[in-house]
Amino acid sequence: MSKIDWKDLYSTVGAGLKPSPIRELMKYTKEPGMISFAGGNPDPEIFPVAEFGQASQILTERGKEALQYGATDGFAPLKDFIAQWMAPRMGRVTATEEMVVTTGSQQMMDLLCTALIDPGDCAIVEEPTYPGSIHTMRNHHVTFLTCPCDEDGMVVDALPEIIEKARKAGQKVKFIYTIVNFHNPAGVTLSLERRRKLLDIASRYGILIFEDDPYGHLRYDGDHLPTIFSMDNEGIVLFACSFSKILAPGTRVAWAVGDKDLIRSLVMVKQGVDLCTSVVAQALVYEYCRQGNMESFLPKIVAHYGKKRDAMAQAFEKHLPADVRFVKPAGGFFFWLNLPGVDTKELFFKAVERKVAFVTGPAFYPSGSGGENNLRSCFTFASTEQIDEGARRLAQAIADLKG
Amino acid sequence: MSKIDWKDLYSTVGAGLKPSPIRELMKYTKEPGMISFAGGNPDPEIFPVAEFGQASQILTERGKEALQYGATDGFAPLKDFIAQWMAPRMGRVTATEEMVVTTGSQQMMDLLCTALIDPGDCAIVEEPTYPGSIHTMRNHHVTFLTCPCDEDGMVVDALPEIIEKARKAGQKVKFIYTIVNFHNPAGVTLSLERRRKLLDIASRYGILIFEDDPYGHLRYDGDHLPTIFSMDNEGIVLFACSFSKILAPGTRVAWAVGDKDLIRSLVMVKQGVDLCTSVVAQALVYEYCRQGNMESFLPKIVAHYGKKRDAMAQAFEKHLPADVRFVKPAGGFFFWLNLPGVDTKELFFKAVERKVAFVTGPAFYPSGSGGENNLRSCFTFASTEQIDEGARRLAQAIADLKG
Repeated sequence: MSKIDWKDLYSTVGAGLKPSPIRELMKYTKEPGMISFAGGNPDPEIFPVAEFGQASQILTERGKEALQYGATDGFAPLKDFIAQWMAPRMGRVTATEEMVVTTGSQQMMDLLCTALIDPGDCAIVEEPTYPGSIHTMRNHHVTFLTCPCDEDGMVVDALPEIIEKARKAGQKVKFIYTIVNFHNPAGVTLSLERRRKLLDIASRYGILIFEDDPYGHLRYDGDHLPTIFSMDNEGIVLFACSFSKILAPGTRVAWAVGDKDLIRSLVMVKQGVDLCTSVVAQALVYEYCRQGNMESFLPKIVAHYGKKRDAMAQAFEKHLPADVRFVKPAGGFFFWLNLPGVDTKELFFKAVERKVAFVTGPAFYPSGSGGENNLRSCFTFASTEQIDEGARRLAQAIADLKG
Repeated sequence: MSKIDWKDLYSTVGAGLKPSPIRELMKYTKEPGMISFAGGNPDPEIFPVAEFGQASQILTERGKEALQYGATDGFAPLKDFIAQWMAPRMGRVTATEEMVVTTGSQQMMDLLCTALIDPGDCAIVEEPTYPGSIHTMRNHHVTFLTCPCDEDGMVVDALPEIIEKARKAGQKVKFIYTIVNFHNPAGVTLSLERRRKLLDIASRYGILIFEDDPYGHLRYDGDHLPTIFSMDNEGIVLFACSFSKILAPGTRVAWAVGDKDLIRSLVMVKQGVDLCTSVVAQALVYEYCRQGNMESFLPKIVAHYGKKRDAMAQAFEKHLPADVRFVKPAGGFFFWLNLPGVDTKELFFKAVERKVAFVTGPAFYPSGSGGENNLRSCFTFASTEQIDEGARRLAQAIADLKG
């Protein structure tokens, strides 16, 4: 019996909030017997539960520090560890003023939007792209400009025209958002040549690159490509990485490195967002790392997921119709299937009847339109046996739909 | 050598970011020998380090759950505990759909502003008020309307005129923000009569009340007053509380209860902010509570701070000039001193020379102007001996200034 007129109370953002399409679909994945290729969850079977449990000794040994308010830019020992550990990927040991620890990489997008976006300002995103980032950007009234992706990642040659068109229309393009390695959802990796070109284009137009790399460590084939950050001499790349996929997402500990002035602004925004990332969680992650688990346990995670990736590729080749196309990802969590002539929204309901779930293509498009013949299939969460059975069920669902 | 024109890149918020006045002052508190009454930090000497360390068994026992992504609205066992434990304060056992766990109470203000505030919308805050909330609201382009405080808290009789004036000017007043118990910085508590009146006024005008109560459990004298939430039959009160002051701020675990529709919107905003609060931190807090520490340890914290509150009152009475006025707070963390004829900004520099620090009054005013003769003094962080010596030094600094 509220006397509040909620319609009048909500902001434009508040009034427009809708459950994310992925969250909506996820409710089906909880049904008994469902095999889920839908969520982007790590496999709890490969969580380093014992090792992480051992790290909890730091809560006693350094309890007064771990339980107190922490510095907004992060727990200093953790920042030092990351700077040293990431040096080969970053091209150098980054300075502490260049790094902020965030409450998941999700928060990095939130902080960046507050610092850079006035309502209506533009950002360039890949199409398809990660729906969580779309959601955050919507919270901040971002106007989306989209750049297509192919098997070598973002088609960076399309950028100059996109930027110039926007500028002619009086729009400000604030940053280019790219998921460089084992793209979510497209599974592709930005080629070395395109990384160079992207940096060149961003430099020419004076636009920030947000290089999002939550999956970079999870490479199952081939060699790591240099980060765009490591090629940048101008401070125009903000690089974000996370412990979510290489340790555990329940920590909500991630970090970003970039230009000192930008990082200082992001830290100031963060003061008004959550003061600091959980010091308890940061201390645990630090101690886990300090005990050498990145060297000893991360390879186990990579090997575990590499086998699942292979299992899903084999299962799709074995069960799915010959016209279904996909690129076997060299790392990460996802296959991105193209099913000619199949509307994956319709397929979804046939699939959940057959007890297998995925995410439909349009969820990865800012406009909600596009990718109608695509679906994302996560290979990390289901067991190897489930992967084969799930692919079989998916093939049945496709047959059901084609009647 | 960045080719980015940062001035052009930043948003209105980003360009206007300044370090918070408290953070700026805090650097002085790190100087050797400094006695700090400045920050609002709990005393690490009373952190339940051993008890919290014991709770870490949950990271092994329920590791697969604690390390995975969690529900955006919070870790269900923790929510259940809070609902039961808080029932006497809330007037009933709140439903799970009425509660969201947040990454500190600071995040509650951030989520609320995203859901309710379009740039330029108004919120009513007490003057003085908590600078962290001012900072968050600035991140969201809130227009501040201010209501004075006296020894009974917010002068709620002033609200109708404030609201009507704003509405006549075409402004939307989205919520009334009040720190009900042992106000930060004013130390005062909103009287029962004013709680009823505030609810009445908010109901009449159809405006949400944000009842922020991080200190409510820390009462050293007298009986708890009913929460405004518990008097509300219309769903117009959002009540926020936190583990920061009753367990440890390093957890960054807090919660809020309110109208189901509002909570659902806040949860959707949170999906784009940090997905969920650290499940690791929530699981630890839950296990700490489950083991009975709220019953056994919280009274120790309350007794510890009660003694410090008494020590600071005695020290101020003993050392400070007779014309310095303050209300002895019945709980919480802070004394709010009035020093007739003394500009506390000038006093601050004399004080740090004498090796004692506090926060100057204007830091608690949204406009940065007001409270020039006031200062906030935190009694929880310094030791009892430091409190006496700090008060002595403060008296010296006042004498230095008066020359």
